[in-house]
Formats: sequence, C-alpha cells, structure tokens
Amino acid sequence: MPQRINLDYSSHTPLLPEAKQAVGEALERWGNPSSIHTSGREAKQALEQARRQVAALINATPEEISFTSCGTESNNWAVRGLLAANKRKGSHVIVSAIEHPSVSLIARRLEREGARITTLPVDHEGVVSPADLKAALTPETVVVSIMLANGEVGTVEPIKELAAVAHEQGALFHADAVAAVGHLAVDARALGVDALSLAANQFYGPAGGGGLFVREGIRILPLLEGGGQEHGGRSGTESVPAIVGMGRAAEVAAQQLPARAAQLGRLRDRLRDGLRERVDALRFNGSWSSRLPHNLHVCVEGVSSESLVLALDQAGIDAGLGSACNSKAMRPSHVLKAMGLTEEQANGALVLSVGVPTTDEEIDQALERIPPVVQRLRNVTSLTTRSLSH
Amino acid sequence: MPQRINLDYSSHTPLLPEAKQAVGEALERWGNPSSIHTSGREAKQALEQARRQVAALINATPEEISFTSCGTESNNWAVRGLLAANKRKGSHVIVSAIEHPSVSLIARRLEREGARITTLPVDHEGVVSPADLKAALTPETVVVSIMLANGEVGTVEPIKELAAVAHEQGALFHADAVAAVGHLAVDARALGVDALSLAANQFYGPAGGGGLFVREGIRILPLLEGGGQEHGGRSGTESVPAIVGMGRAAEVAAQQLPARAAQLGRLRDRLRDGLRERVDALRFNGSWSSRLPHNLHVCVEGVSSESLVLALDQAGIDAGLGSACNSKAMRPSHVLKAMGLTEEQANGALVLSVGVPTTDEEIDQALERIPPVVQRLRNVTSLTTRSLSH
Repeated sequence: MPQRINLDYSSHTPLLPEAKQAVGEALERWGNPSSIHTSGREAKQALEQARRQVAALINATPEEISFTSCGTESNNWAVRGLLAANKRKGSHVIVSAIEHPSVSLIARRLEREGARITTLPVDHEGVVSPADLKAALTPETVVVSIMLANGEVGTVEPIKELAAVAHEQGALFHADAVAAVGHLAVDARALGVDALSLAANQFYGPAGGGGLFVREGIRILPLLEGGGQEHGGRSGTESVPAIVGMGRAAEVAAQQLPARAAQLGRLRDRLRDGLRERVDALRFNGSWSSRLPHNLHVCVEGVSSESLVLALDQAGIDAGLGSACNSKAMRPSHVLKAMGLTEEQANGALVLSVGVPTTDEEIDQALERIPPVVQRLRNVTSLTTRSLSH
Repeated sequence: MPQRINLDYSSHTPLLPEAKQAVGEALERWGNPSSIHTSGREAKQALEQARRQVAALINATPEEISFTSCGTESNNWAVRGLLAANKRKGSHVIVSAIEHPSVSLIARRLEREGARITTLPVDHEGVVSPADLKAALTPETVVVSIMLANGEVGTVEPIKELAAVAHEQGALFHADAVAAVGHLAVDARALGVDALSLAANQFYGPAGGGGLFVREGIRILPLLEGGGQEHGGRSGTESVPAIVGMGRAAEVAAQQLPARAAQLGRLRDRLRDGLRERVDALRFNGSWSSRLPHNLHVCVEGVSSESLVLALDQAGIDAGLGSACNSKAMRPSHVLKAMGLTEEQANGALVLSVGVPTTDEEIDQALERIPPVVQRLRNVTSLTTRSLSH
C-alpha cells in the first residue's frame, strides 16, 4: 500500500504538535473559567493567554477577540449582530456572490426578516471590485461582508480598499478570514476592518475553536445569550481545550509566517506546473496575482468532481470537492458560476491544497498518480458518451 | 499541602478516562466529516457512532440528536428555533422563573422582538406547578421551556406532567436537561418532551460538546446557518474530538446509571448530615423528594458567598457559587429569590456537589475543613457588624 498523500488541507488542517500538547494539557486542567476558586482562575488564565496569542496573530488587542465554536458561528454572529446593533442607520446589507454559505445564507435569512440585501458580482478571477461596492452603498447600508480569501478558488480580495470604500459611506465592514488566517499575514488593523472571522481548524488548531475580532468601539449584539461569558458577547461554557489549542496554533503561525506561506506557495506551484505538463486541457481557476499560497483550483473538463475525488481516493490521494463545509449542498459551485464559468467548464472541479506537512516527495508522487486517474476517467466518459450517442 | 477536594462538580465534570482516550484518538484522526474521501468518511462514521451513543443515553433515535457547541447554544436554539418554525400558532412563550440565563435571556430577547413571555413562579422548593402552567397556557402558546433539573438548588421538575399539560393546549415542550443528563436516568421518550438540551461537560465529557434532541416530526428553524451540517439543523465544521468524547461519556453514563446516581446520592447525604451535625444555622435548599443526586445547596447566614468560596479555596476545597456559568452576573441568585428567600436568607449560598471521583475519605476531610472556615467567617462578620453598629 503506497503512502497516502493529503492534498486536501483546505477542508481541514491537522493539529500542530504544539497545539496537540496544549489541548492535552487543557484536557487535564478541568476547571470552569467562570469558577472563582483556584482551578477556575487557572482555566481563566489559560483562556486569556490564548486570547493574547490569537490577537497577536492578527494585530488586534485581546479585548477585541471573542471566542466562538467555529467559523460559521463567527460569520453568522458578525453579520446578524452588527446589523441588529446598528438598526438606526438602516437595514441594508451587502455581500459578495462568492461568500461562504455561513454569510450568504444568513443574508438570505435577514432578507426574509425584512433587511435589504445586495449581492456584488465578481470578475472571472473571483475578485470583487471596489467600484461595484461604491455603487451599491447607500446611506442605509449597515454592514458589508466580503471574504478575505475564497477557500475554494483561492482568490484573495482587496479588503483594504473595499473596507475604505464602505467606511466612506459610514457602513461597517466584516471580513470572513477563515480561509486566510494562518496562511497569509492578516493584519486586522492595517486592513481597517470592523470585524473579522477566523477558525482554528484552518490554521492547524483544533476544530471547535473559532474567533471573532470586533474592533474596539464597534457595537454588536450577541448571537448566543446566557451566562455572560466573553464579556457578554458570547455566552456558553468555554471549550478551554479547543481555545488553548487555537491560541498555541496562532502563536506558531505568527512565528512561521511568512516563511510558511513561501514554502506552501513553492510546493503548490510545483504541483501546478507538473500537472500542466502532464495533463492537457486543465483549467486553473482564481487569481494568480492575489492568491492563497496553498491553494490550487482546477477543472477537468468532461469528468465529474465526485468521480475524480473518489478515484483519487482509490489512488491514495485526498482531494477536495468544491467548498469543503458544503461539499454536498451546491453543485455546480456558486463560486464558479459567479466567476462566469459555464456548467460544462465548471465540471470536474477539484481543490488541491498543500499544507505544512507536505513534502517535495509527496508532490512528485502526486504528479505520478494524478495523470493516469484523469486519463482513465476521461476514457470512461468518452466511451459512455459514444455509446449514448448511438 | 493537604490534598485538594473537589466539591464543585456542578460547574464542571472532569473527563472520564474513556472519554479522554476517545478525544485523543479523534485529535489524531483529522478528516473533515464533510469530505467524501476515506479520511472524511471515517470522521463521519465516528460522528455517527457518537450520535448513536448520545441517543441511547436518553432513549432517542440518532436522527433526533443534533450536535451543538454547548448547553447554551442548545437552549438558545431550542427556544428561538421552535418559536420561529411555528409562528402560525402564535407568539407566546412560557418559561419558569428559575431557568438558566440561556433560556431566560433568550425569552427576554424574543419579547423585545415582539413575542409575549409568561414566567411561571416556583414554590419554596423550586418546583413548578402543572396547575400554574395550565392556567398560563393559551391557544397562542407555541413553546414551553422548563428545565429538567436546576443545577444550583438541585430540584428536579415534574417534566412528564408539565409536558402533558403543554400538549393538551397544542404547545411544544422544551426541557433544559443540561444539569440532569448523566446524573439521572433521562428518557426523552417517556418524558414526552419535544426538545431537550444536554452538554457533555456536565456528564464527564469534554467542554465544546453539546446536543439538542428534537423529536421526530417537530419543526425547528436552525440557529446557525451555512454549510448544512447536521442535516441542515446546525451548520459549522463539526468538532469531532468533542463530539466523540461526548459520545463515549454518554455510553459510560448509560452503563453506570443508576449505580452512579445511588453512589453520588449516598456521598452527598453523608456530606449533608455531617454538616448539619457540625455547623449550626445552615439552611439547606431545594426539594429533597425530587433532587439531583450529587447536589447540595446550602446558605450560611451572615456570610457572603464569595468570601465562603474563597476561604474554602484557601482550605483546599473547590466549591460553587450560585449558578456556575453565571457566577458573576446575578447576585443574589434569581433562583433563590424566586423560591421566596429574603436577601438575608439567600446570603452565603454555596453549591457543594460530589462527582464520580469523590471518595468517602474526601467527605470526611471536607467535614473537618468546612466547619472552622464557616466559624471563622462568622466571627469576622459579627465583629465587623458590632464595630459598624458602634
């Protein structure tokens, strides 16, 4: 049995050894951070250390970080909570056409509850235009929510420009940075955003750890209410193991960036160049000038995504199918549609992503294993098509 | 340094060795359950095994269990989601006066959004009366939310009777069973509830694992929306480690109940009887005929709860202060107020709770350490009072 090769880091990143150790320690340390006795206070201290670590990764203050359970909760909370806390200004929300469903579906829900929603288009590389945002803004616009990077096609959006345009009209700006944090240097202060979502399972921390940055002075209503944890912003007994694991993973990411990004980018480019040489008629998607370093998005015409992922799995390769947390919901991908791909062109969409553990040897191996899989599926398809056209 | 004694299991339960092992294994197994390749499918299988384990603990079917991040999320979701999905019937919600803030604050929020809220009183033992519920129900009542057991004063509510009364008027019934599951045998089917909340960190599973039972056929809108996980009921990448740890803890609880309850009840009663003998003028609160087996709630007149918890901490004892996830928010406790205690009587409220690891030796030790602490604080108080009245 040949060694399995993971090219699906965009749907999940393995725990760093440092983060695993932190989670293990926290599982032993079992105080409730709300308790005022010693074991509770120790848990609280661990929590606050993690808050400082996460804050440092995105150049925020610890007070600006709230812990949540995942990126979806952060996105839901940001869009709903910012709108609810600032209703005096209006009830207009702007999102892009390539947002993660945790933003786009909340926007749709808010629409049913009476808000007005504008969905901005993207160009053929998946980029949102600041001019389009400017044209869509009105004095009633409360929140603009545009992702920092799209985890599917890899495109990184011009958030700094977009946030500045939103602020000119007095609108708040939220960026879903779940796919970006830990892979790119993300500076919430320099970007000028009012809120920013992140999730540990995308930067080699544990699933169950999410975060929302809310800039000091920005009003937001809570999504989860109860015991008043996280300064009343997010109630619920804190998952200390997930949070301290996230903190440690953030600390390591801060130390390793930008070297990590350079290394991933190099491996990703080797994979792309090798595939280009060995397989014809591949379509690589997303921006190349402004892109997540670890992500490759490719379409293989005439073959379905599912059959590709399953055939690669048989060949010992983990590959991603469209948006990872949404793999079964939308076909063809709303992102590729928004970028103007026809249904045929969007066929055989594959996310191939490298990670910190990826080696050059794995890329070599992948370049040997992938081409025959694609060729075999293409032969099957052309055979089926021929016999069908009889 | 004498061994520390934990009498604060009601705010947090340590991980069972079996659950710790399951969490550790899951941290190694790092697929995203939404991925369709082998490692994703394995994660999905682990998730579904945990769902069966949790379902078995409360006599539900796996399809009736959704995973959440904590009890607060489950409670928020249940009350908000049941109301939102059944608005045709009306917009009346009934809760009790001793609910956890994750129920009572959501009710208050829904009130601001236009719902009508009725808060039922409790008697001096903290019991909700089915007759009171019957009188409060109207044809417009959509949801009744009453906790199965109060984690603070220990009282177990007559949920089966209350749910039947609610159903007579066509209202749905949700029970917050966070403080009860794992300590009492909880049978969602026999209770006849439509929804029931639980949290792993209350039954020796990991924090970060929560669950909501929703009876088959009952409509509920999601609280978190996005990638459509949990059959669209709760979006967000699943925290597989927390979930499999919860599943294993549920399995062990199912095996150990009712022996666990009997053992905890015996140790708790020893603690109560010993304290009664050794310290005068203690007030034990809550029902004795219908009570959580591990919980003791006592008020020490003339002394503040905080000073008691901190002095016990110094003496090597972890004790709880009011409701654990709410220790800083409400003073004096809304629960004790609702039970008719005066502010003076509600003074010095302490939750002393035993757990699976508690030994007879620990109870003996606690009975030696607690009385002098109480005596010392009482002396300080009477001294201060005397000098103040000069």
